Amino acid sequence: MELLERLKSPADLRGLDPLELDRLADEIRELLIERVTRNGGHLGPNLGVVELTLALHRVFDSPRDSLVWDTGHQAYVHKLLTGRAADFATLRTRGGMSGYPSRAESEHDLVENSHASTALSYADGLSHARQTRGDPGHVVAVIGDGALTGGMSWEAVNNIAAAPGRPLVVVINDNARSYAPTVGGLAQHLAALRTSRGYEEFLERAKYTLQGVPAVGDTVYRALHGAKKGLKDFLTPQALYEDLGLKYLGPVDGHDREAVEAALRRARAFGGSVVVHCITEKGRGYAPAEEDTRDRFHAVRAAPAPGQPSSAGGPSWTAAFGEELLAQAERRPDVVALTAAMLEPAGLLPLQRALPARVVDVGIAEQHAVTCAAGMAMGGLHPVVCVYATFLNRAFDQVLMDVALHRLPVTFVLDRAGITGDDGASHNGIWDLAALQAVPGLRIAAPRDRATLRRLLDEALDTEDAPTLLRYPKGALAPDLPAQERIPGPDGTTSVDVLARTGEDVLLVAVGALGGACAEAARLLAGQGIGCTVVDPGWVKPVPRALVDLAARFDTVVTAEDGLRTGGVGQTLASALRDARVVPRALRTLGVPTGFLEHASRAELLRECGLTSEGIAAQVAEAVAEATGRPPLKGAV
Amino acid sequence: MELLERLKSPADLRGLDPLELDRLADEIRELLIERVTRNGGHLGPNLGVVELTLALHRVFDSPRDSLVWDTGHQAYVHKLLTGRAADFATLRTRGGMSGYPSRAESEHDLVENSHASTALSYADGLSHARQTRGDPGHVVAVIGDGALTGGMSWEAVNNIAAAPGRPLVVVINDNARSYAPTVGGLAQHLAALRTSRGYEEFLERAKYTLQGVPAVGDTVYRALHGAKKGLKDFLTPQALYEDLGLKYLGPVDGHDREAVEAALRRARAFGGSVVVHCITEKGRGYAPAEEDTRDRFHAVRAAPAPGQPSSAGGPSWTAAFGEELLAQAERRPDVVALTAAMLEPAGLLPLQRALPARVVDVGIAEQHAVTCAAGMAMGGLHPVVCVYATFLNRAFDQVLMDVALHRLPVTFVLDRAGITGDDGASHNGIWDLAALQAVPGLRIAAPRDRATLRRLLDEALDTEDAPTLLRYPKGALAPDLPAQERIPGPDGTTSVDVLARTGEDVLLVAVGALGGACAEAARLLAGQGIGCTVVDPGWVKPVPRALVDLAARFDTVVTAEDGLRTGGVGQTLASALRDARVVPRALRTLGVPTGFLEHASRAELLRECGLTSEGIAAQVAEAVAEATGRPPLKGAV
Repeated sequence: MELLERLKSPADLRGLDPLELDRLADEIRELLIERVTRNGGHLGPNLGVVELTLALHRVFDSPRDSLVWDTGHQAYVHKLLTGRAADFATLRTRGGMSGYPSRAESEHDLVENSHASTALSYADGLSHARQTRGDPGHVVAVIGDGALTGGMSWEAVNNIAAAPGRPLVVVINDNARSYAPTVGGLAQHLAALRTSRGYEEFLERAKYTLQGVPAVGDTVYRALHGAKKGLKDFLTPQALYEDLGLKYLGPVDGHDREAVEAALRRARAFGGSVVVHCITEKGRGYAPAEEDTRDRFHAVRAAPAPGQPSSAGGPSWTAAFGEELLAQAERRPDVVALTAAMLEPAGLLPLQRALPARVVDVGIAEQHAVTCAAGMAMGGLHPVVCVYATFLNRAFDQVLMDVALHRLPVTFVLDRAGITGDDGASHNGIWDLAALQAVPGLRIAAPRDRATLRRLLDEALDTEDAPTLLRYPKGALAPDLPAQERIPGPDGTTSVDVLARTGEDVLLVAVGALGGACAEAARLLAGQGIGCTVVDPGWVKPVPRALVDLAARFDTVVTAEDGLRTGGVGQTLASALRDARVVPRALRTLGVPTGFLEHASRAELLRECGLTSEGIAAQVAEAVAEATGRPPLKGAV
Repeated sequence: MELLERLKSPADLRGLDPLELDRLADEIRELLIERVTRNGGHLGPNLGVVELTLALHRVFDSPRDSLVWDTGHQAYVHKLLTGRAADFATLRTRGGMSGYPSRAESEHDLVENSHASTALSYADGLSHARQTRGDPGHVVAVIGDGALTGGMSWEAVNNIAAAPGRPLVVVINDNARSYAPTVGGLAQHLAALRTSRGYEEFLERAKYTLQGVPAVGDTVYRALHGAKKGLKDFLTPQALYEDLGLKYLGPVDGHDREAVEAALRRARAFGGSVVVHCITEKGRGYAPAEEDTRDRFHAVRAAPAPGQPSSAGGPSWTAAFGEELLAQAERRPDVVALTAAMLEPAGLLPLQRALPARVVDVGIAEQHAVTCAAGMAMGGLHPVVCVYATFLNRAFDQVLMDVALHRLPVTFVLDRAGITGDDGASHNGIWDLAALQAVPGLRIAAPRDRATLRRLLDEALDTEDAPTLLRYPKGALAPDLPAQERIPGPDGTTSVDVLARTGEDVLLVAVGALGGACAEAARLLAGQGIGCTVVDPGWVKPVPRALVDLAARFDTVVTAEDGLRTGGVGQTLASALRDARVVPRALRTLGVPTGFLEHASRAELLRECGLTSEGIAAQVAEAVAEATGRPPLKGAV
């Protein structure tokens, strides 16, 4: 690590000779492999951009030139080259280095958001600002081929093309992959092309590979086989950029540092908007990654600490959902799953293997996924849209206007709902329960275990006159937590499960996977002489009438949810109680405070938000004390 | 109207001879002009699709074939041809015919949402469903050239191209316009082309005009002049579709009914996915519209009822904002306005005329508008994003992740916030105050009059470390309503304006433009012996501490907002009061109930939601009765 340790700023790179640069690249790969396999993180993408990042920092002068990384998980090398090598051991740990660009860490980092397809829009704005203020620097955006399938990339390209005179360089980091999974048939087809004609010829002919390309997976494969002309033109889409008036350079071999540097220098000298197309290999230089046909070590888990078990426990929520969905699809011919470039992460591989025609992957295109599902539902199917909770925000308008306005039977399944932790602020799925309260008619459920996942999914798929949504967290399923009793709702409305009943001092409403922590909190509180009734309504939107009726019998009501407090399930219940003229002496809504969470583990953040059993117990005890001790009428301010 | 009256269903069209069809087209235009100029509505777009709609219903067999209209305001002719001519007199009136497709009205209507760029996604889903269910009908989507600039259209085109074998016809209704305003320089340029080479040659050469084209307005004009090659290729983008493997027919003259029919018959016979490109003229056949260079009568207002004044009163909110923004921009070189194809509707014409470089219109591309603004703010500008409230939902994720996560000084200005009415469910701007509560750090203000608009805009532009948002309703400004007193917040936090003080029985919190109705409600209540203190906090997010302190002194607190109750300002205040242990005896949050509103006038809907002075007074009186009469502790259920 001798060279890396000597680097104080990217300017030092310009003093290195070619041999030193090659050694530096080796040092970087060594450090990436050693540290990321230990701390967890995005290994494959960063191994793919070592030479590209070196070249970028030699040719451009950050921060005088602005460097924007799309979906910032490929910025580790950038971090190492901008004075942060010494801190790299703290990657993704609490208080340590973020796994994404971070403005607090460095003046070289601009965009912290990890949602895809935004870089070109930022770059357009930055470039406009530089022009307006007479600031001569360049703006450089690095975007993956996968992110170019997102609609907002197209909106940005259109606008960048409208002002082609500004010094704006778009670097396409084309590794022929979007998210984790290989891009189904298309990737195979391209691989075949490479083999039969040689890589050079491939580069020559296939001036472009994936960008502008549609859906991934099976449908593309069939489409391309059925439309030879389409394939040919997919491979020469340089024309597309040039048609729009953008200069195009490439493709260049993204691992030939000197070739990349030469292309970037030409782009820089040109002075206007230029697209530089780099072909890279995810996982480059690390044999286990290069040989991994699944996802090339897109993201790896942290190694277990010494003495700890190697896995977090039982099967994951994702795997359980995948199995339940397959079971449903085998029974119900109307079920079809959609995802936005998250086939494996969303648990759809089992369904795809068993019933390939029942899975549609639209690429990174959440808006289209949702409205396409609306069309499918109009056509008599029951689509199940499977995405990470944080990414559904991209399609808020489509959920509201395209699905809910038409009362269509679309089921949304949100994986990684609630606090996710390590991946930083923008990966947390803490917005769904709050923002989606504003969607009329949408019914929301949060399973607490495998059995309720099965039941709620079944009820969702049986709902024919309204959209439904299920949400569950990242990680391992807890053991089943059977209801001790089920309180039926009036007139056949939603029932409520009683998870624990140690007394009637307080009603504790547990949302979804917090059921276990709430039941445990009840045991802790029993030791303090506080009797709890812990319930899980399963369906949390609309507010179950059984819950309102039940709350009327308690002096203290506390809700706990793994999502934003503001506007969440608890506050909506509070409003429903007010409307029903039910006024508990004390009412507390526990959840995530409104704000962006720093990266840390899910367990650490749950503790910080007071959502562990101890934290919940402490807050319940406080509420009970207030209810019994406070003056009877006007609250103590 | 003899032919129109005889039509019972679209099938009857097939029995008409060419002369009868021409007469029918004349009857339709006559009826459109007569009725829409009286009831208000979208005149220009419907005059432009008379022949196209006739041809669609002769060639396809709705509802066996599915017809999807993008941005449904051009579906009037479709309504007339599907058995609804007799009801057309009730267009856009309460309980009458909707100005958009309506599933309740007809089995020929599928999509009610008026937000642009969705039709291709619906069509992709419908087509997938038909294929899966073995249902042989065609799916036909009609989309304007303007809507093709929206990213989700691109996402859909990519996916449609991935399965080109399905019978799916995309009709591009290309009138060289997006929303109301002429598309700046580009339209002029195209007009020049038409004049110099003749329309026929134009059609021949300019196989395509606007689609795939970027921003509108000044920047495009400059871009095209600077990039001749770009212009040439803009005009032949048929290649783009064919590259993607989609068959392309056209362009055809959209007013030559027989030519359109022939193209549609070919598309139908082809069996796979086909693009049919029709060139139409907005306002066709109505001289005042054809001669209107501004917006070709895109939308016209309802004529005044006999004896009523012809205008709704003073200047509009839109006009007032436009003037205030211009005044700010003249003082502050960092201010730049962005809009998404709403230059004139958002009030930006005065700024554009005075300081053209300070306005950017990105086309129908809200996502890009917001993230481009984030980039501008990173680059040192203070962007002001001006859109209708309902359309900001398209960029919820970008507001949250691209602007708020980075605490950037972007100001959003939402016109048409609150109930808009006539244009139906999807045009109401009732979601912002609720959904955006989940955006950390975003500060939201609602001006009540011209003076507070000026002050709050000034404060928003002075905010350097957080995004801000102003929202105001559709229509005319009420006269200024000066504060009788201003209650300062502790430690320099937001102050609260007292609008009326007739006593201290109830604190009535008025949000924005409801200030007048609340002050009037106080006068009504004084007559019943109920003393009110009416306050307007101006800034409603975060909840002002002054408001919490003030509420602690009242037994009854009522809030009133022109937006969803669920999760809105009132419920968030309720939560803040709970957190501060402030517990009024009665607390009511007035607003729009969660649900989609049927179309009616804004005044009618405000009355229905209890948001007139009478409605507010009645609910306040009820709350006061409850606070004084109810048992002291547990609420009466």
